[in-house]
Amino acid sequence: MANNDIEMLRKELDDVNLQLLDLINKRASIVQEIGHIKYKQGVNVFDPVREKEMLEQLVAHNKGPFDNATVKHIFKEVFKACVELQEDHHRKALLV
Amino acid sequence: MANNDIEMLRKELDDVNLQLLDLINKRASIVQEIGHIKYKQGVNVFDPVREKEMLEQLVAHNKGPFDNATVKHIFKEVFKACVELQEDHHRKALLV
Repeated sequence: MANNDIEMLRKELDDVNLQLLDLINKRASIVQEIGHIKYKQGVNVFDPVREKEMLEQLVAHNKGPFDNATVKHIFKEVFKACVELQEDHHRKALLV
Repeated sequence: MANNDIEMLRKELDDVNLQLLDLINKRASIVQEIGHIKYKQGVNVFDPVREKEMLEQLVAHNKGPFDNATVKHIFKEVFKACVELQEDHHRKALLV
């Protein structure tokens, strides 16, 4: 019985994983679009004030079970990966 | 015009952030449920084989713009946070 429950929960987890995957890639695409506009304007892509605001908004909406420190840690990793993706994109553009 | 576009994209980003927040917390809740069942069975909560399978499934479904290494890196952080949450939960249970 308990093993059936685990199987069911694992299927649910796989589903959530794929939804998360789609969302982080969607996030990366939006950040790329923003980066593209900023790049044309000659504005720096990384904006620490905006990043701080987003983290504050996330903490304000956090209902758990993750605590705020964990939410911030995970999102900082996602933000960093998005910034690196843009930098990589523009570095390649410069090489063309 | 470009600034309006950035504003619109930022709103979209805020929306995606909150969806991501809900999903990582949903994931944490499911992992807690699995952990609870495993704990009662006396089975170790951390399962490296299952973790590897999940990463392979994610890479197989990855359509970018994030590359597979980045997807793996972000998800490993999420997995680690979920395991820590369970360990913390059971440590507290032992102290009661």
